[in-house]
Amino acid sequence: VTGAVAFDDRGLTLGDGLFETILVRDGQPVLWQEHLERMAAGCAVLALPDAPLMQAADLGMRALEAADLMRGRAALRLTLTAGAGGRGLDRPDDLVPRLFATAAPAPMPATPARAIVSSVRRNAGSPASRLKSLSYLDNVLARRQARAAGADEAVMLNTDGHVACAAAANLFWLSGGMLVTPALECGVLAGLMRAAVIGRARSGGIAIIEEKAELSALAGAEAVWLTNSLVGVRPVAWLHGRGLAPHPLTETLCALAADLV
Amino acid sequence: VTGAVAFDDRGLTLGDGLFETILVRDGQPVLWQEHLERMAAGCAVLALPDAPLMQAADLGMRALEAADLMRGRAALRLTLTAGAGGRGLDRPDDLVPRLFATAAPAPMPATPARAIVSSVRRNAGSPASRLKSLSYLDNVLARRQARAAGADEAVMLNTDGHVACAAAANLFWLSGGMLVTPALECGVLAGLMRAAVIGRARSGGIAIIEEKAELSALAGAEAVWLTNSLVGVRPVAWLHGRGLAPHPLTETLCALAADLV
Repeated sequence: VTGAVAFDDRGLTLGDGLFETILVRDGQPVLWQEHLERMAAGCAVLALPDAPLMQAADLGMRALEAADLMRGRAALRLTLTAGAGGRGLDRPDDLVPRLFATAAPAPMPATPARAIVSSVRRNAGSPASRLKSLSYLDNVLARRQARAAGADEAVMLNTDGHVACAAAANLFWLSGGMLVTPALECGVLAGLMRAAVIGRARSGGIAIIEEKAELSALAGAEAVWLTNSLVGVRPVAWLHGRGLAPHPLTETLCALAADLV
Repeated sequence: VTGAVAFDDRGLTLGDGLFETILVRDGQPVLWQEHLERMAAGCAVLALPDAPLMQAADLGMRALEAADLMRGRAALRLTLTAGAGGRGLDRPDDLVPRLFATAAPAPMPATPARAIVSSVRRNAGSPASRLKSLSYLDNVLARRQARAAGADEAVMLNTDGHVACAAAANLFWLSGGMLVTPALECGVLAGLMRAAVIGRARSGGIAIIEEKAELSALAGAEAVWLTNSLVGVRPVAWLHGRGLAPHPLTETLCALAADLV
């Protein structure tokens, strides 16, 4: 990793900023436009200028080249901070956001996941809960709980007890013959793979319900899947003490996202 | 500001870390030991090694000298990050936290505050809500709402609707002849000035109740105060549309903290 930000950068001091993690295959980013649009939408929510996104393609290409990742699968991260901040919470009048890119090898398409239910709740009462923001400590703490329990991922509920998403993935499950995913208003990260799976499923005549769901719905599900931009659709084989048998719908869902992973 | 952190620092990429803001008068930090103890306690909650705190005094002194702030009032900030992180939420096995210090002139003892009630909620369901963490975006957003409304500070409720604290201060109010402050379990930053005021008031025979309070309790209060380490006790003169007359208890409360500001 080359490059640094100054001690007074608000991304560092206050988590004031956003990021995107983009799958790149042989130098070709997947869902590139969608990632940029999501970051621009997040900038609007946070009232940050999105002008630096014009440099995203250049910065991304240079990061991939510097990491020697123009071949194979890479995870490209774009990070946008609110820039130099001075002291305190108030942004300076002459705010200049900063964009930088880093690249790393992408994780391999994963084996079925083991997931716990974390005690760390998501905050549906903040717009940040739907954004990939630089204030990601709750997700870090939830994932730590998963690792401490010998699991790979952590399911997070919101403070009302509704199922939201995993620390670094969205959730889908099969319950009573219906495919379900939590509604964004539950404090759910607005995942691009989530949106792709929902849209493609519906186009193919497969209904997916977005709803407020209690933990009991997830706990009693016949099958559970995680989705994110790097691994696509990943089945859950163990959920908080309960084994889940392989389910034929996994193949259907993976096929929906096959060209995106 | 001199110094920088690398693009892969987890404080920058994920808000994985803590900070303290310490008032320094003529080179003498106020509540120094309490600040270090709070940061160490936060490290324990986040499972971060607190060994770097041994360098805090050296780093702080150098930051004050570099900023030419060994005279007068300075705000010294200690920032502890989880260090270099690699990709993703999981901390590396060989985690090495990083501590750095910055200094700026401290804000002057403030005039009475104008405060709104923010729509951004606090997350009582995360331990981070009680810590000065690097994931402070909710506080930034709440403060922005205050500024947009021509106010100085934002009162934040938690997702259950209970009053928590302000974006960068704790709250006290007088209601039915009783002094009240929200209980820490409401998603309240565990402020050192809050603790000092409570402890000193009780020692002086003044009761302060820590409780779960509805917004209506605050909205109907006879007097409201903000506290933090830089300004001590600050009266609120306007709260979300309602003017508050000066109250004689302000002098009492300010006197409790007079030696700390």
